Amino acid sequence: MTTAKRDTYTPETLLSVAVQVFNERGYDGTSMEHLSKAAGISKSSIYHHVAGKEELLQRAVSRALDGLFGILDEEHARVGPAAHRLEYVVRRMVEVLIGELPYVTLLLRVRGNTDTERWALERRRDFDHRVAELLRAAAADGDVRGDMDGRLATRLVFGMINSIVEWYRPGGRGMVESEVADAVVRLVFEGLRSAPAGPATSNGPTS
Amino acid sequence: MTTAKRDTYTPETLLSVAVQVFNERGYDGTSMEHLSKAAGISKSSIYHHVAGKEELLQRAVSRALDGLFGILDEEHARVGPAAHRLEYVVRRMVEVLIGELPYVTLLLRVRGNTDTERWALERRRDFDHRVAELLRAAAADGDVRGDMDGRLATRLVFGMINSIVEWYRPGGRGMVESEVADAVVRLVFEGLRSAPAGPATSNGPTS
Repeated sequence: MTTAKRDTYTPETLLSVAVQVFNERGYDGTSMEHLSKAAGISKSSIYHHVAGKEELLQRAVSRALDGLFGILDEEHARVGPAAHRLEYVVRRMVEVLIGELPYVTLLLRVRGNTDTERWALERRRDFDHRVAELLRAAAADGDVRGDMDGRLATRLVFGMINSIVEWYRPGGRGMVESEVADAVVRLVFEGLRSAPAGPATSNGPTS
Repeated sequence: MTTAKRDTYTPETLLSVAVQVFNERGYDGTSMEHLSKAAGISKSSIYHHVAGKEELLQRAVSRALDGLFGILDEEHARVGPAAHRLEYVVRRMVEVLIGELPYVTLLLRVRGNTDTERWALERRRDFDHRVAELLRAAAADGDVRGDMDGRLATRLVFGMINSIVEWYRPGGRGMVESEVADAVVRLVFEGLRSAPAGPATSNGPTS
């Protein structure tokens, strides 16, 4: 027997329960009944907070999207050479993804069956385009290689960053956010290959 | 009214129908009824070919895994400096992923609810470890940067490669396989940043 607990939820805390359920069951597979059980309050208590589950989805993906778009308004994303701005945006994307992990996870799983999902996909595409433009500007400056299609490069970089939601678990014995962000920035901009040792760093025998 | 068509399936063609349905509905969400409808033959005709849907899953993920593990047996993956072998394996992973797109897509979505799924996850982990070892060997040779955790680097590279299943569509106006493979290899090994122009490639004014 489950006893409904007293409704002490704020919009924030109810949202965090809903996002967890959406990520576990999928948005389509989640009913108000599931949300009520997970939150431990009645359905009518949930309706006191929100109009329905689509409003919860809308708030959750908005939080992820606001985090991502917020990056583009930060000073280092607006001022300076395009290559520096691009590097800053890539690092901040990893930080926002990890900082808002369940919300970004939900955003990345959105498929487009409802108005809210279609709107979220549209906003994601806008964000992708903004970053692709930055990449093209950096290529035009000669700071980023020009021998690669900008859209393809953006997709691959986003693919790498977004894949972090598949394995990153906060608070575990795993890596801290800055370690992951550093690795992504290095890999994306410098690649895996060791820089050829120049004369200054050569450690060969100096007879 | 649907009329069951004559069963002219081979194990191969039936598998390709099943994989399509699994990818659309999810393996858990697919019943023998769904498979029967998609194939246009009766359930008993399907049972003539296979013991059940788990056997179809097992054959499908085996095809993807055989493709991936097959790479490691190829000469260029076995002979030569670790960095060259790693580069070869990364390129071939993209080619196998695109060549066996529906099978690898299914493999990447496996979650571990059945014995077959747990076995597939175990095999994927084995493959990941084999590539991570190659990366560590290349780092020990000094050909791959040593300032990055090998497991993290492997995860990020796999994340980039695996993300291709989200957007690559064969036969469209999109990119050909070799273009995607080239871009991945460049990005993974050299990164986005332009190499600093050396004297030989400088195109500044030579007064």
